[in-house]
Amino acid sequence: MADDKPKAVVLLSGGLDSATTLALACDDNFSCYALTFDYGQRHRIELEAAKRVAQRLGAADHRVVKLDISWMGGSALTDKSIAVPTTPTEGIPVTYVPARNTVFLSIALGWAEVLGAHDLYIGANAVDYSGYPDCRPEYMRAFEQLANLGTRAGVLGERFRLHTPLMHMCKAEIIRAGARLGVDYGLTISCYDPDDAGRACGVCDSCRFRAQGFAAAGVPDPTPYRC
Amino acid sequence: MADDKPKAVVLLSGGLDSATTLALACDDNFSCYALTFDYGQRHRIELEAAKRVAQRLGAADHRVVKLDISWMGGSALTDKSIAVPTTPTEGIPVTYVPARNTVFLSIALGWAEVLGAHDLYIGANAVDYSGYPDCRPEYMRAFEQLANLGTRAGVLGERFRLHTPLMHMCKAEIIRAGARLGVDYGLTISCYDPDDAGRACGVCDSCRFRAQGFAAAGVPDPTPYRC
Repeated sequence: MADDKPKAVVLLSGGLDSATTLALACDDNFSCYALTFDYGQRHRIELEAAKRVAQRLGAADHRVVKLDISWMGGSALTDKSIAVPTTPTEGIPVTYVPARNTVFLSIALGWAEVLGAHDLYIGANAVDYSGYPDCRPEYMRAFEQLANLGTRAGVLGERFRLHTPLMHMCKAEIIRAGARLGVDYGLTISCYDPDDAGRACGVCDSCRFRAQGFAAAGVPDPTPYRC
Repeated sequence: MADDKPKAVVLLSGGLDSATTLALACDDNFSCYALTFDYGQRHRIELEAAKRVAQRLGAADHRVVKLDISWMGGSALTDKSIAVPTTPTEGIPVTYVPARNTVFLSIALGWAEVLGAHDLYIGANAVDYSGYPDCRPEYMRAFEQLANLGTRAGVLGERFRLHTPLMHMCKAEIIRAGARLGVDYGLTISCYDPDDAGRACGVCDSCRFRAQGFAAAGVPDPTPYRC
């Protein structure tokens, strides 16, 4: 039987937020096309996490697109010469990857056009957002406008919608939403600097937000920590 | 001696328009960082053309970024199952590559951030533009707005400028501008369907606009045609 649900493209990193976003997109009754980028990130183990999450949540398709942006340098997530900070920092952190969401959303948009999808999902968050400029609501609205101006579908009067269901949730709310939908957070990886076995450092921004979230949500934290 | 000119990132395809754009950016006194995409296009010979053009025009750096978007399908330029049309078509043609300029400009933006550049150049054209939605002025303004919202530099109050010097030029004006700046158009390839020796088909949209442009500009056409 053909699946006649509308299609949505969902950015999936293998982390907690994007896994929850995929679960929410499925719950919104979309047939979900998950898109993961192999962009020269330090911790390739997150690609394996993304595959497990897409499969478990029943994505209609999952693509891992190789796009090396590490040649640009400029971020602790792709440039081994920049250390990942282990204490909170002010302003935009060194883990910011220049224009990353713009690049990822652009490719998601291209795939959506080909699929005939008008809905994109991204797990951006303005509460625990770590100061990334391309996670803000005003940025998301600007991308939506760009999508409608720069595509065949947009010119023909179809409207793209960029869904950011996590935007105003705190980490505990995200975890509660995902837990309600049966997300197995043991499959996800959030750490900026996991070891080869996928165990989290427990001290980077991302680990701290995650651990605080499980505690605040009253949900047992399934994260394997290395210390 | 260090080059203290401001930097600009220039999208360079190896075609006539982008070669002219690079020459104009150099003439605007920018130190030019040329960016070419190896995106699974049918005619890889254009990558060689881009290298020759960047070298001849004195780009400070030239990167060829491998980004396979042909898995998406949906365009005659990347999908061998879709024929390149040889007669004029109405509306948005099958050579449109979904969200291509958005993808390319996003990566250019990331590189610009890392370089400390605030200027991007793209050879988009609204006159002979073949009906591509992502070549229109309103699209370019939307991208500029996105760039200023989605980057560290933008948040810190620096403004990105997206230069489209060819936007309102007809093909003859483009050719005259490039010829004045010494662009060797014999190095460039515009054809959507060249043969292995780099000879142009002479009948696709791009070939026809180019040939008409040389004729109207009164500049000898150095293009090698196969028939």
